[in-house]
Amino acid sequence: MKVGSQSWKFNNNVYLLETATAVGPLESQGPLKDDFDILYDEPYCGQKSWEQAESQLMRSAIQKVINKAKIKESDISVSFAGDLVNQIVPTHYVFRETNIPFFGIYGACSTSMESLLLSSIFVDSDNAKIALAATSSHNSSAERQYRNPTEYGGPKPDTAQYTVTGSGVALVSHKKTKIRIESGTVGIIVDAAQNDANDMGSAMAPAAAQTIKQHFQDLGLDPSYYDLILTGDLATCGSPILIDILKGEGYDISQQHNDCGKLIFSDDQPVFAGGSGCGCCAVVTYGHIKKLLEEKKLKHVLVVATGALLNPIILQQKETIPCIAHAVALCAAD
Amino acid sequence: MKVGSQSWKFNNNVYLLETATAVGPLESQGPLKDDFDILYDEPYCGQKSWEQAESQLMRSAIQKVINKAKIKESDISVSFAGDLVNQIVPTHYVFRETNIPFFGIYGACSTSMESLLLSSIFVDSDNAKIALAATSSHNSSAERQYRNPTEYGGPKPDTAQYTVTGSGVALVSHKKTKIRIESGTVGIIVDAAQNDANDMGSAMAPAAAQTIKQHFQDLGLDPSYYDLILTGDLATCGSPILIDILKGEGYDISQQHNDCGKLIFSDDQPVFAGGSGCGCCAVVTYGHIKKLLEEKKLKHVLVVATGALLNPIILQQKETIPCIAHAVALCAAD
Repeated sequence: MKVGSQSWKFNNNVYLLETATAVGPLESQGPLKDDFDILYDEPYCGQKSWEQAESQLMRSAIQKVINKAKIKESDISVSFAGDLVNQIVPTHYVFRETNIPFFGIYGACSTSMESLLLSSIFVDSDNAKIALAATSSHNSSAERQYRNPTEYGGPKPDTAQYTVTGSGVALVSHKKTKIRIESGTVGIIVDAAQNDANDMGSAMAPAAAQTIKQHFQDLGLDPSYYDLILTGDLATCGSPILIDILKGEGYDISQQHNDCGKLIFSDDQPVFAGGSGCGCCAVVTYGHIKKLLEEKKLKHVLVVATGALLNPIILQQKETIPCIAHAVALCAAD
Repeated sequence: MKVGSQSWKFNNNVYLLETATAVGPLESQGPLKDDFDILYDEPYCGQKSWEQAESQLMRSAIQKVINKAKIKESDISVSFAGDLVNQIVPTHYVFRETNIPFFGIYGACSTSMESLLLSSIFVDSDNAKIALAATSSHNSSAERQYRNPTEYGGPKPDTAQYTVTGSGVALVSHKKTKIRIESGTVGIIVDAAQNDANDMGSAMAPAAAQTIKQHFQDLGLDPSYYDLILTGDLATCGSPILIDILKGEGYDISQQHNDCGKLIFSDDQPVFAGGSGCGCCAVVTYGHIKKLLEEKKLKHVLVVATGALLNPIILQQKETIPCIAHAVALCAAD
């Protein structure tokens, strides 16, 4: 049910049926490695190109989630999926192998929660029995598309983020599980007049702040309702900016806030300000956070996926980067 | 309400509240020119780049539809929008000027009906009071991205299609108007093993056939139910292939079929096999077809938007082109 200007409250028993994650080599060495389902030890994932490797990440995660949930592919009513590559091709090359009804979406790194929010709305309103949300990113396919040829090797500033190689997928249905999807908030596009493709966190923080503030207002909540408000991915540069903006709006989230881009790597890994990419929030949420909710180490989590809607041609035309954030609230079910 | 494996039947009074269209110079000289709201007489539409021109097409169409429907921007509950440019930036640069809740989607030329189908599902299930579906394409921004530098001037084969410069937008709500949205069918991805970026119609025909056949099966209909089955855009090459495939499946649509890519230009315009681009199906449907439905010259129309999910990098990797088609059925309301 829609509440307020940007949110939905899911009163109709919407649950995370199952999730699955697949990650690349650097993520397989990080602090969350035990929480992922499939670990690839080389960046091609057995394929011939980075784009095909990204498809392989999503393909294996989808096969895994279908197996874990003990369903058939034909049980999936509808899917919402996308990635960072132009024309979301890694996603298309996975879904052409299936007969799953398919809605392609694009929200840069916000795609993970855009797909989970749409899946939840469809299940809540009985437009789908089982909905599939899928997203992926690959460091090398993203790097050459958005910044420089991957082999270029130019030095990066500390504000840069490292695109995660990984895919996270989720199934949503009415079947009671340990994780209920409580509510969600769709974003509006916010442009903070930033144009540095090596500082996405600062660009995205104002969009995250707008969505979080509206989430509280639409649902009549305050930060204390959540044990964790998890952005994906503001990393070390954007996170303090988000906290500052919301403090100015009267919301102190400093105790509850953390960021997927900070959690997925350790300080000694070569990732500058932290992780990013639509795979980052997806694998952290569907791997790590799901486990903590199932173990009841977390009760109420708001996942806020942030997207920098960046395009190199438009930046060359001296434009700034519009951003968006979509949020979904998960809770440990009784 | 979901029916069958890929379709929805809208029993809950879903209507096309209003539409608006904006087109470029070649479209303004074509046979449908009197059916469009806004005609630009030069390809930059008063802007400094083709991408910005594409934004201007969508921006002016959205302003127009809001004015025609006599609503305020804040009355729009949710929007589904996208275009052909990498990262759908023309769309993002329009929506950053608004506070409209935004879901970015990507379906190549199928985006027009993907956005109208999602809007209709949201209104049917009371997840939105007024939903906005918007899409655009621009010949020059598409040409340089998908094929060759626009100034290159290489000759094209007769199978090539000409990307329409235009934007079509629609508002969907429960308010009774002359056009009811009856049903819709989401596509699955079909790859016909075609890899020629200058023959999209042949690549897309099998995806259109799958969606149309499933539409008939899910809703218990046959071709005779429709006065017009309108694809967008198979043009002159893909259209006979679609008719042949469906004949082989037991459905003869030869009497009802037409194609947006054939309707929007006349034979003496320099457009090879006809129009394409997600603006094509949008402006033909929301300009021309809407008028014919309002005048009751058409009663039941199935609009089938077809997308070639083409990416130049993947074609260089010797891959083929996956395709998809989404359908929405419109009828003249009593």
